[in-house]
Amino acid sequence: MKKITIKTPGILSNLKPLIFGIFITLSLLVTACAAEKESVDLIVQGRYVVTMTPEMPVIENGAVAVKDSVIVAVGTADDIGAKYTAKTNISGKDRILMPGLINGHTHTSMVLFRGMADDLALMPWLRNYIFPMEGQFVDPEFIDVGMKLACLEMIRGGTTTFVDMYFYPDREADVIEACGLRAIVGSPSIDFPSPGFKGWDDSYGAAVKFVKERKSKSGRVIPAFAPHAPYTVSAEHLADLAKMARKLKAPITTHLSEDRAELDQIKERYGTTPIQHVKNLGLLDNWLIAAHVVHPTAAEIKLLAKYKVGVIHNPTSNLKTAAGISPVPEMLKAGVRVGLGTDGAASNNDLNMWEEIRLAALLHKGVNYDATLMPAETVLKMATIGGAEAIRLDKLVGDIAVGKRADLIQLDLSGAHMTPLYNVISHLVYAATGSDVVTTIVDGHILMQDGKFLTLDAEKIRRQANEIGARITKALQKK
Amino acid sequence: MKKITIKTPGILSNLKPLIFGIFITLSLLVTACAAEKESVDLIVQGRYVVTMTPEMPVIENGAVAVKDSVIVAVGTADDIGAKYTAKTNISGKDRILMPGLINGHTHTSMVLFRGMADDLALMPWLRNYIFPMEGQFVDPEFIDVGMKLACLEMIRGGTTTFVDMYFYPDREADVIEACGLRAIVGSPSIDFPSPGFKGWDDSYGAAVKFVKERKSKSGRVIPAFAPHAPYTVSAEHLADLAKMARKLKAPITTHLSEDRAELDQIKERYGTTPIQHVKNLGLLDNWLIAAHVVHPTAAEIKLLAKYKVGVIHNPTSNLKTAAGISPVPEMLKAGVRVGLGTDGAASNNDLNMWEEIRLAALLHKGVNYDATLMPAETVLKMATIGGAEAIRLDKLVGDIAVGKRADLIQLDLSGAHMTPLYNVISHLVYAATGSDVVTTIVDGHILMQDGKFLTLDAEKIRRQANEIGARITKALQKK
Repeated sequence: MKKITIKTPGILSNLKPLIFGIFITLSLLVTACAAEKESVDLIVQGRYVVTMTPEMPVIENGAVAVKDSVIVAVGTADDIGAKYTAKTNISGKDRILMPGLINGHTHTSMVLFRGMADDLALMPWLRNYIFPMEGQFVDPEFIDVGMKLACLEMIRGGTTTFVDMYFYPDREADVIEACGLRAIVGSPSIDFPSPGFKGWDDSYGAAVKFVKERKSKSGRVIPAFAPHAPYTVSAEHLADLAKMARKLKAPITTHLSEDRAELDQIKERYGTTPIQHVKNLGLLDNWLIAAHVVHPTAAEIKLLAKYKVGVIHNPTSNLKTAAGISPVPEMLKAGVRVGLGTDGAASNNDLNMWEEIRLAALLHKGVNYDATLMPAETVLKMATIGGAEAIRLDKLVGDIAVGKRADLIQLDLSGAHMTPLYNVISHLVYAATGSDVVTTIVDGHILMQDGKFLTLDAEKIRRQANEIGARITKALQKK
Repeated sequence: MKKITIKTPGILSNLKPLIFGIFITLSLLVTACAAEKESVDLIVQGRYVVTMTPEMPVIENGAVAVKDSVIVAVGTADDIGAKYTAKTNISGKDRILMPGLINGHTHTSMVLFRGMADDLALMPWLRNYIFPMEGQFVDPEFIDVGMKLACLEMIRGGTTTFVDMYFYPDREADVIEACGLRAIVGSPSIDFPSPGFKGWDDSYGAAVKFVKERKSKSGRVIPAFAPHAPYTVSAEHLADLAKMARKLKAPITTHLSEDRAELDQIKERYGTTPIQHVKNLGLLDNWLIAAHVVHPTAAEIKLLAKYKVGVIHNPTSNLKTAAGISPVPEMLKAGVRVGLGTDGAASNNDLNMWEEIRLAALLHKGVNYDATLMPAETVLKMATIGGAEAIRLDKLVGDIAVGKRADLIQLDLSGAHMTPLYNVISHLVYAATGSDVVTTIVDGHILMQDGKFLTLDAEKIRRQANEIGARITKALQKK
């Protein structure tokens, strides 16, 4: 390295000590200014920061500062850089930064049944495949591997919060805490025997226990009740559960008004419609997360809005199982809180929220002969802050705003399918795919960076999943 | 390296020359056998080879041998390896090998308008955005960059053949030949002024010239006529064009029975329905590729089947523009040849055939309340051999069979969303995404390997596309 000697001209020679003094003073000032920068844990940038807040939807060349899992500042990259210094910095070059997606309804571990049986009517599908295979294979090990595989897929595709309803919820919750995602985990209750339970009494008892115990732990898992549906849980049981859930201040997640057969059964048994029926039992309030809601009457839509029920639209599943098409535009118009979900992978066959976003934006236009319905921004809200409202987590997550938990994702903009770019919201809804997600952050912790998983061993999980898949294949061949 | 000396026991000492002789003879035989292996250009393997032929749909651990652009053998990897030796070998570990996808209807260079304007009714969208921006920006340079960007996207997503209808078809054809894809390129004709043309006479004249000239070139581009639609081209012009196309043995690709407004216009002008109208003009035959066909009557469906018309179903576009939902299950039942298409990226907003496959499989189930409609295999056929039949290229491409051109793609199976695997066809339809494609081969030439483009400079194309995008953005801001 060359040593630099500063040669001062003769006339300045005597000023040397003065110049040195000024230099030292300025240096100290700059250092003092730098020291005044607030130290944070993480700064994430974005060529476009899609905040999903009403005031400041998209910031060009923006950044988010995160401290103790919480968003402490949002602004231009220049402003954030001037005010904050971080241990970890993630570049936003060629990337969109936005809130993590919220999958409002899924049965995660069913990823292990992905593609096991398709293109079948509901009853043969359930009776010949899902129920027998669940009976034979769903145990704690299955849940452990299934939930890990599902978390891998969700982290890969930018889902940061999900609402789950499957078996062995305690086991599920442990995996979720370990892999770093956020979830509302419903403990399933049903009047019939199911994996781990003989019937209502023990499944409901276990749910009460699960909710009480998990509530005392301060993790990212929020415990909930998950009665299966109004046609599989008696009126009396539903009413009891509703009272208990209200007492424990726990969410209830359930299937509601999904299939036309359900309408017939509820009509026959109770002389009413499913949503009116659960209202009569005290279930309608803003703790209720109702999945599907494909066949609400106009009066029921008013009830859903009035009681601030969270409705989860699962367009792929509703088409694949031939349940029908939910009147989402009407519900949104009436002020119903509507989020989006994938449903379980057995009826989808993946947990890719981008496909639900795209389909929700497309489907209702075509069915209603109106290309202006369900515009991109409306649908993207359903997958972020609107979904958070529907599941009552909007104080915590759903947009990029100061005080919210740092649940953030970055999408790569360099693909041909994302080029050129006129409107970033349009690209997210109509052009992006799950594989464009390159960074997933929950609670300020990086779960995936540049497509690499930091909390899960993808290779191992895939091997374990394939082993279970091989055992299921053998059982299917014996049928 | 250790030198190995063979020590023979005393009793065998005298047999040394004999043993050596046998060894030499065996070595020569092995060498001779190896030399007997037929030399081919390329062997591509697949953990699963999805041939799409009726006889041999899926081969486990299979391979395809390619010589002079043609598939010369299909079988297990062991059998192919025993009979053939190739200069280039592509491993099939953790990969599905299948025929390239066929996009039966698109306006490729419109990728440069991707996401420019969404969620608008058809007329404001066309009049305020598409028509003025086409008028201002579509020139040979636009087509050059737009087609390259589109080819990049199609190669990335595993589309190997497409049917195009846009401006400056000669320029388009040159780009397609250079990048290595296969296409039917329609020269657009319309009664009104359009980029490059004042009206019918010169657009039709240019189409005749284009078809004649390109037919004499023996490339991968098949020239075609592309009259816009029966409501934008007069009956007389359509009849003239049909006669000329039949004389030149060239395909015709057109929009047909797309929007309900079209039905009204044709009814008013000609007192009939669009498909009956073009039948009266002599257009119905197996050289016709009819895009959309959203509103055929039962009688028209019979006509389409009888005349072996190729129908292209564009589910995303039909939903997004609110054209409606095509009765594809009824058409398939009647024996109509139905393929799949993306339409232009302005109404999609990408050229990802996997989304059309998935949507075609889902949509009709939900709309018709029948989960058994459009099973996975039926839909995958529409994107491969069925699509090839619809565009009359089934002698050339569409499945993996000896004698067909080697248009092949590989998909990676290692993603969480592809795990576990029970049914490879189900995964391709309900779980795969465009980004799972890792290899794209057309005519035996590798266009993409391990996700890397071999015939196009992705970075340069993206830069050029963004420059045009920036100019369009400025023009939009002035509006």
